[in-house]
Amino acid sequence: MASKKLNITPLHDRVIVKAAAAEEKTAGGIIIPDTAKEKPQRGVVVAAGSGKKDEPMTVKVGDTVLYGKYAGTEIAVEGQDLLIMRESDILAIV
Amino acid sequence: MASKKLNITPLHDRVIVKAAAAEEKTAGGIIIPDTAKEKPQRGVVVAAGSGKKDEPMTVKVGDTVLYGKYAGTEIAVEGQDLLIMRESDILAIV
Amino acid sequence: MASKKLNITPLHDRVIVKAAAAEEKTAGGIIIPDTAKEKPQRGVVVAAGSGKKDEPMTVKVGDTVLYGKYAGTEIAVEGQDLLIMRESDILAIV
Amino acid sequence: MASKKLNITPLHDRVIVKAAAAEEKTAGGIIIPDTAKEKPQRGVVVAAGSGKKDEPMTVKVGDTVLYGKYAGTEIAVEGQDLLIMRESDILAIV
Amino acid sequence: MASKKLNITPLHDRVIVKAAAAEEKTAGGIIIPDTAKEKPQRGVVVAAGSGKKDEPMTVKVGDTVLYGKYAGTEIAVEGQDLLIMRESDILAIV
Amino acid sequence: MASKKLNITPLHDRVIVKAAAAEEKTAGGIIIPDTAKEKPQRGVVVAAGSGKKDEPMTVKVGDTVLYGKYAGTEIAVEGQDLLIMRESDILAIV
Amino acid sequence: MASKKLNITPLHDRVIVKAAAAEEKTAGGIIIPDTAKEKPQRGVVVAAGSGKKDEPMTVKVGDTVLYGKYAGTEIAVEGQDLLIMRESDILAIV
Repeated sequence: MASKKLNITPLHDRVIVKAAAAEEKTAGGIIIPDTAKEKPQRGVVVAAGSGKKDEPMTVKVGDTVLYGKYAGTEIAVEGQDLLIMRESDILAIV
Repeated sequence: MASKKLNITPLHDRVIVKAAAAEEKTAGGIIIPDTAKEKPQRGVVVAAGSGKKDEPMTVKVGDTVLYGKYAGTEIAVEGQDLLIMRESDILAIV
Repeated sequence: MASKKLNITPLHDRVIVKAAAAEEKTAGGIIIPDTAKEKPQRGVVVAAGSGKKDEPMTVKVGDTVLYGKYAGTEIAVEGQDLLIMRESDILAIV
Repeated sequence: MASKKLNITPLHDRVIVKAAAAEEKTAGGIIIPDTAKEKPQRGVVVAAGSGKKDEPMTVKVGDTVLYGKYAGTEIAVEGQDLLIMRESDILAIV
Repeated sequence: MASKKLNITPLHDRVIVKAAAAEEKTAGGIIIPDTAKEKPQRGVVVAAGSGKKDEPMTVKVGDTVLYGKYAGTEIAVEGQDLLIMRESDILAIV
Repeated sequence: MASKKLNITPLHDRVIVKAAAAEEKTAGGIIIPDTAKEKPQRGVVVAAGSGKKDEPMTVKVGDTVLYGKYAGTEIAVEGQDLLIMRESDILAIV
Repeated sequence: MASKKLNITPLHDRVIVKAAAAEEKTAGGIIIPDTAKEKPQRGVVVAAGSGKKDEPMTVKVGDTVLYGKYAGTEIAVEGQDLLIMRESDILAIV
């Protein structure tokens, strides 16, 4: 889940997250077909803005974070599928 | 209902709650089938954020709290089903 | 309508109210069946939070209060059916 | 339209108003049946709260006021039908 | 369009406006039936509140003003049909 | 597109704009029938308010401005069809 | 994607963006018909306002930016199709 530094600067309180790969197998070892995989809600921060006025950022590049199911906008940067969201969409640092 | 400290940091004013197990029997001793059990609205705080700017947190890890029926987002952390919610979703400390 | 002190602390500007019993008889002495009784909008404060930042509470434990028809969330604490609401849902102290 | 002082204290910026009786006759002397009477929008303030933080009340007990058609919540206090509303629902003092 | 001073005090930032009479004739001299007359959006201020906290009023009694089509609440005071609206509903002084 | 000074004062942060005439011909010289003409989004400021508290106006009389398709309220002043809108509805000065 | 300086001044926190041309070919070399091309979400800032009160702008003319799919209003200036949006609609600088 290592991510090279991206040449992209999120504005203000936004962060860019690389979603963790969805599970390929259930706990019991059954392979999950693509269509049944749940969209992951866990990822690694690959870029973070400089925060809002008087509110510095809490998360930083490299943090593994949890976020809501419908958080963020999908963007494609340098061939990678990423999510860009506001820090307020991030629930916790794991 | 004891909970070991989780390796997770909720952001800002969020808290993570482990819901109390739903009642298995009515007051009169009748066993309640799974589908008829009400979703519990009581749980123990297992992790708490550091608060919002200028607003420290009131609840702390270990508090038993009441919360609204639809409060929080379900997350799975280290094999446990937990709820992550804002402190403002917590109604009272019991 | 006496209420022993509850072992519960409402958060911030919330108060817990024990609703007055619904009237059993009309003014003219006719007994009202259960289904026709109006949900009461009057009760006694049994617990009160410590207020919001810079806004101390106005109501205190023991006050009889009026509140809107749909105010509050029903909770069961120590076998009693109570209502938990924000102070702003309380209309007046009687 | 005289009103004895009520033993009730509206919270914050709320006022209690006794609505003026609806007109019984049209200007031309025709008696209006109950169902055709318009809900009055004029009444006398019988109790007033102490205002919001940093905003004292403008209306006081005894003022005759105009208010919007759907302003306030109906309450029954000491056998009288009254309206409780926020000062911001009051349009003018007549 | 002269208006004697009314014995009514609008609260805070409200003003009372006497709408200009609707046009009786088109520019070409054709008489417009009552049902086809447009509700006027021009009137004279007959009473003004004392403003909101830290925001004195801009309009004053006697000003001819333009206002939005659906601005204000109709009230009847001393036999006149008037409109009571907030100053923010007034578009311009003519 | 010259506009003589109007005898009208917009309130607060409002401006009055005279819309540019819709194009009569396409770039290729085809005459556009009235019903197919797009409502213009470009006009000249003919009057401007004095701004909101602590926020002076940026646009001034004579500026040619762009505004959103549905910005403003149509008013008729001294025989001219004009638009009155808030400064925040103006997108840019051309 | 070079853009000559436009003679247009966006108001406050607005920026004008020239969208990048949509891709004409897929990664595999297949030509994409016009109707199947996705609206691009990447462009170059060609003009920027002076910011909101106490909030200077972060983006500047010449920055390549990413923005949400439905951000901005289409405008035509000096024969070019451009987008005008608020800085808060811009997700990141690439």
